Amino acid sequence: MSYYKNRTLVFKNSYIAEGYTVAGPKENDGRYKGCFDLSLSDDMFGEKTFEKAERRMFEHAINGAIAKANLTIDHIDAVFGGDLLNQIVSCAFAMRNVHSGFFGLYNACATFVESLILGAGMLNNGLENVLCVSGSHFSTAERQYRYPLELGVLRSPVTQWTATGVGCSVLTSRPQSECPKILKATVGRVVDYEIMDTNNMGAAMAPAAVDTFETFLHDTKSKASDYDIVITGDLGKLGGDIFMDLLGRKGIDISGRYLDCGASLYFDSQQTYQGGSGAACSALVFNSEILNNLNRGKYKKAVLIGTGALMSPTTSFQGESIPAIAHLVQIDRR
Amino acid sequence: MSYYKNRTLVFKNSYIAEGYTVAGPKENDGRYKGCFDLSLSDDMFGEKTFEKAERRMFEHAINGAIAKANLTIDHIDAVFGGDLLNQIVSCAFAMRNVHSGFFGLYNACATFVESLILGAGMLNNGLENVLCVSGSHFSTAERQYRYPLELGVLRSPVTQWTATGVGCSVLTSRPQSECPKILKATVGRVVDYEIMDTNNMGAAMAPAAVDTFETFLHDTKSKASDYDIVITGDLGKLGGDIFMDLLGRKGIDISGRYLDCGASLYFDSQQTYQGGSGAACSALVFNSEILNNLNRGKYKKAVLIGTGALMSPTTSFQGESIPAIAHLVQIDRR
Repeated sequence: MSYYKNRTLVFKNSYIAEGYTVAGPKENDGRYKGCFDLSLSDDMFGEKTFEKAERRMFEHAINGAIAKANLTIDHIDAVFGGDLLNQIVSCAFAMRNVHSGFFGLYNACATFVESLILGAGMLNNGLENVLCVSGSHFSTAERQYRYPLELGVLRSPVTQWTATGVGCSVLTSRPQSECPKILKATVGRVVDYEIMDTNNMGAAMAPAAVDTFETFLHDTKSKASDYDIVITGDLGKLGGDIFMDLLGRKGIDISGRYLDCGASLYFDSQQTYQGGSGAACSALVFNSEILNNLNRGKYKKAVLIGTGALMSPTTSFQGESIPAIAHLVQIDRR
Repeated sequence: MSYYKNRTLVFKNSYIAEGYTVAGPKENDGRYKGCFDLSLSDDMFGEKTFEKAERRMFEHAINGAIAKANLTIDHIDAVFGGDLLNQIVSCAFAMRNVHSGFFGLYNACATFVESLILGAGMLNNGLENVLCVSGSHFSTAERQYRYPLELGVLRSPVTQWTATGVGCSVLTSRPQSECPKILKATVGRVVDYEIMDTNNMGAAMAPAAVDTFETFLHDTKSKASDYDIVITGDLGKLGGDIFMDLLGRKGIDISGRYLDCGASLYFDSQQTYQGGSGAACSALVFNSEILNNLNRGKYKKAVLIGTGALMSPTTSFQGESIPAIAHLVQIDRR
């Protein structure tokens, strides 16, 4: 991995061997119906609590990804992953059944792309196979971040819907066959435009996505039109519009080549308002639809920008604004 | 960075240029009095809440470490860090004032060593300077994990005291002078010996530390006596005894060369029972006492094992045991 400027890295041998997804019922009723490896009919996944269900989704996605890549757990050197629950317990507890090394990560909904960057980086240092995994669950996130579900609180029109699911990628330094390559990355920095409305995370995250994408284009001396698709994680419809608008003011045009995982996840009829969000969002859409399109050659050069809002209920209660971060990876299919 | 077995890595050019510490009042009344770069007389650090104080300690430690290493923020490519607060908000919010890339990490009290491993790994890939930072605050941890301080709940004799402070290391691939080198690392895996008492985290973490240290000795074909000092993060007195006992049963003797940051942080008269714990523990002691001894040449080969208990209040309420993890780095001073 060589080194551009401060924040943009180039990887030598980081390939995406496989992706595996476990999706909740509402997610599989959305625009990507049938694209997921496992779709749950019950978001309890046969468990007693939503938290245990979220953990079981992690366990299933990890095992599914390993099997789909025709590997066993003994082939996996390390797992890079996290989730939205306090102390990232869904991923950490799932790791009790996995004897690989574990790097616990947290960059909110940017965690999946963070895991791709660190996984690709450590792969370039002798590791052979690593897993990058991230996920979330609507019902665990709601009661942790917002209100008890039983309260039936009316949702603001600017809200998004925390996606239920887990996505897991298998990265390898020695691909068995031709597969997409993580070529470059731009590490996100924390930006805070002093958005105070915790319902409006898209508005808080859009400037971070702009900062990272602009830095990436600058550092790589490339332009938006060099990429078949520019994907953001979970800016949602409103956040995506702000993202395109802010880029437009900088003379960067991504119209016709832009997709937000969150905004595209559900149909309007599913009443999620601004679309999906959560650590599952980019992990689900990337490891299904996007990876399929890369493998089919529909996308030859893709940019994936994971977006995260870094606040907590405590910081909001203490009157803080919402800092955000966006990590970027460029994925090529030759 | 070459590759031993699954979990042990070797780094080429990862040096520790400097370490900086901010310690709370109780910590500076302990065994390392006067060793810290900044000691607070008030653990509110002039802020309105304990959480804001913890964040300010991060901001101060980050700026202090950069200055102490005779660098500016423009020299720092990325920051690897985390803390114990939900959504690691102390570190993330401190990053609002730092324009470097940010990798948010969470492995509980093993986060500091996790940051050293990932920082050293990414340094071996072209980055020049990175920061590794971790910390905690007694008063924010107590009210998040246990009870409101005002309740004055009696503490169990097996408890430890969450250390207040932040420690930050500056890692560089191009040292200006001779300095300690992060030579090897063994990545921790999650182990769970089904300890149910959340007061007794030392007992939960000791088996993880044994697993990692034993793996390290095996992978590097070395023995405990090859190292001047074996340091654990925050096993505490009881956990440290369990660690030495379990190692003894495997024929590994570390007597006379073992130090636990937590167990050594306070005097008995300070009534912390088993000693210190928290993400600050290893970060404080390593970046003061240990780094001084490495720089003075008192330690030529040191092993630092960060230990973390990965439960959350939610998992405990749902009847789960305490999974634990331990990450290891070998630091040499030639």
